[in-house]
Amino acid sequence: MAPIRNSAVVFAEVPSGYPEVGKHIKYVKDRTIDLDTVDTQGGIVTKNLVISIDPYMRGRMRAADKKSYSPPFELNQPLTNFFVGKVVKTDNSKFKIGQYVYGFGGYEEYTVHPKAQTDALRIISSEELKLGLPLTTWVGAAGMPGQTAYHGFYHIGEPKKGETIFITGASGAVGQIVGQLAKREGLTVIGSAGSDDKVKWLQTELNFDHAFNYKTADPKAELAKFDPLNIYFDNVGGDQLEAALDAAANYARFIECGMISQYNQPDSHGIRNLMAVVGKRLKLQGFIILDKAKDPSFQQEFYSKVPKWIANGELKVKEDVTKGLEQASEALVGIFQGKNFGKAVIQIADD
Amino acid sequence: MAPIRNSAVVFAEVPSGYPEVGKHIKYVKDRTIDLDTVDTQGGIVTKNLVISIDPYMRGRMRAADKKSYSPPFELNQPLTNFFVGKVVKTDNSKFKIGQYVYGFGGYEEYTVHPKAQTDALRIISSEELKLGLPLTTWVGAAGMPGQTAYHGFYHIGEPKKGETIFITGASGAVGQIVGQLAKREGLTVIGSAGSDDKVKWLQTELNFDHAFNYKTADPKAELAKFDPLNIYFDNVGGDQLEAALDAAANYARFIECGMISQYNQPDSHGIRNLMAVVGKRLKLQGFIILDKAKDPSFQQEFYSKVPKWIANGELKVKEDVTKGLEQASEALVGIFQGKNFGKAVIQIADD
Repeated sequence: MAPIRNSAVVFAEVPSGYPEVGKHIKYVKDRTIDLDTVDTQGGIVTKNLVISIDPYMRGRMRAADKKSYSPPFELNQPLTNFFVGKVVKTDNSKFKIGQYVYGFGGYEEYTVHPKAQTDALRIISSEELKLGLPLTTWVGAAGMPGQTAYHGFYHIGEPKKGETIFITGASGAVGQIVGQLAKREGLTVIGSAGSDDKVKWLQTELNFDHAFNYKTADPKAELAKFDPLNIYFDNVGGDQLEAALDAAANYARFIECGMISQYNQPDSHGIRNLMAVVGKRLKLQGFIILDKAKDPSFQQEFYSKVPKWIANGELKVKEDVTKGLEQASEALVGIFQGKNFGKAVIQIADD
Repeated sequence: MAPIRNSAVVFAEVPSGYPEVGKHIKYVKDRTIDLDTVDTQGGIVTKNLVISIDPYMRGRMRAADKKSYSPPFELNQPLTNFFVGKVVKTDNSKFKIGQYVYGFGGYEEYTVHPKAQTDALRIISSEELKLGLPLTTWVGAAGMPGQTAYHGFYHIGEPKKGETIFITGASGAVGQIVGQLAKREGLTVIGSAGSDDKVKWLQTELNFDHAFNYKTADPKAELAKFDPLNIYFDNVGGDQLEAALDAAANYARFIECGMISQYNQPDSHGIRNLMAVVGKRLKLQGFIILDKAKDPSFQQEFYSKVPKWIANGELKVKEDVTKGLEQASEALVGIFQGKNFGKAVIQIADD
């Protein structure tokens, strides 16, 4: 077989503020791969079907010498993130042609996964495929963002029936799942989002007890309408974190999942009311879901429950699917401005 | 018996910044008490011997309608705080004349403790008195500040041998005990204080591995000399908290005990690098030691160990004793400017 196209979205330059399409991230269509001759290094090649867009990717768009919890993207190489692909070549007995795998892949049409990297790939079982979820959902509510919501809410939040929770980024990939888990457990659920459409969806489709548009409403005033917060699920940071500190009940748990409002700000917003942490005996606990990827009991707990809840409709899922890698850069930049409505994901190919 | 003098330090006006002597807190010498006729309401009267000065008292100098974890001081009434007094009158069979009690008392020569308030008083046992500690120590290292250090360090900090801890306010009532407990457990101990004398004392007398004067040194540069922090014991907040966030190791524990740098600042210092909480999976845990006052197992653990460690010299104690209530206002205001060297306490009377 002759070489075939392997277009990609590559990391071209380190941004200081918002990344720009064509400058910091670029679509490159003249790459190729030869499936016959490519060296898998004892691993596999996947045809990439869907790949996730997540806020934490901003942290990976940095200089190679700056340390953080996830590795920086390599300049002039495809972005990488959670994906689902189909095995099209295998030199590893663990994998068969035609299987669907979940894990880390590239923003490209085909990815070579050397043997050392195949350990981190999860084969989606035939029982799981029978649930009939769209493949996009396996990088969303049934993937990393779903795990983030589940672990943060249950294991850090320690929710109790009757408590009150506030969720920022509530219509996003993580927030929408947290909110539904919280309703399921009998909590009063307050969420914020960045448009009236999102707010309406939270109230009418997900039955949040209250939702508000943080761009037009005053978070402190909105939170004052309800009981003090027992749990705050933070995806946003900044002035909504300040509002949550003010509104917190004694012994509240702050699940520190992300601070998207700060990622593109060279000079971060200073949080001025941290003294509430002492006076109210708050716990602020940060976490990185990648730490749980190697925890078999967590993986078992999550995959035995959440995909079924999605399949039977107990958990609703809203996804914002962009078709084609050529549109991926715009979609990626868009999430930092809240342009997506629901879990952002790229459909690279149909199958 | 005729009425006798019962001079006091009273709360005269709510301050907005630093409290001022004679304006916000005033020494009043024309009060009296008649021990024969005073109604104890089924409780006791104490002659007050020592009373503690603590940073958290600033939070109680507020308007009566502002909520916080400890009650506001009452206008035109004596300040109250942890004290040791001698029972001089009793209408309660639990207490005998001549016993020494620890608990809440007034900045005054005699305090009436109605029955409802006597439950919170702890009788210092004759075995404990035999240890020979100065009475001032029972409101210091063997009292609330010692409990604060012990609970925060062990139960929130979860220290492990070989780890690194940073303590702000390290020569203060709490910090000096934390540092010595940490050395005892085999940690590398870094402390900051507000004068070169204090820094020298931490290094030469308490064997801290490193100490620096936060007024003249750059906290970030000082912390960069050592391994990343596994534990931060925060008494100060502000830019030293920022420095600790920058210097923290993954999974570090932040024991949020107080933020004295912020108490007299109407516009608090904003903390700009809280994103470290997410990326480094930090835990920031606030606590109020009063919550442990009613925990018999904690009280038993603390009182069975710490007073003995002080008596046998394993824990050194530095106290800054001011003699006489007429000097108390100056001493109290002084701690917010770091004028005390060691645990600040008032000796009201000799016995």
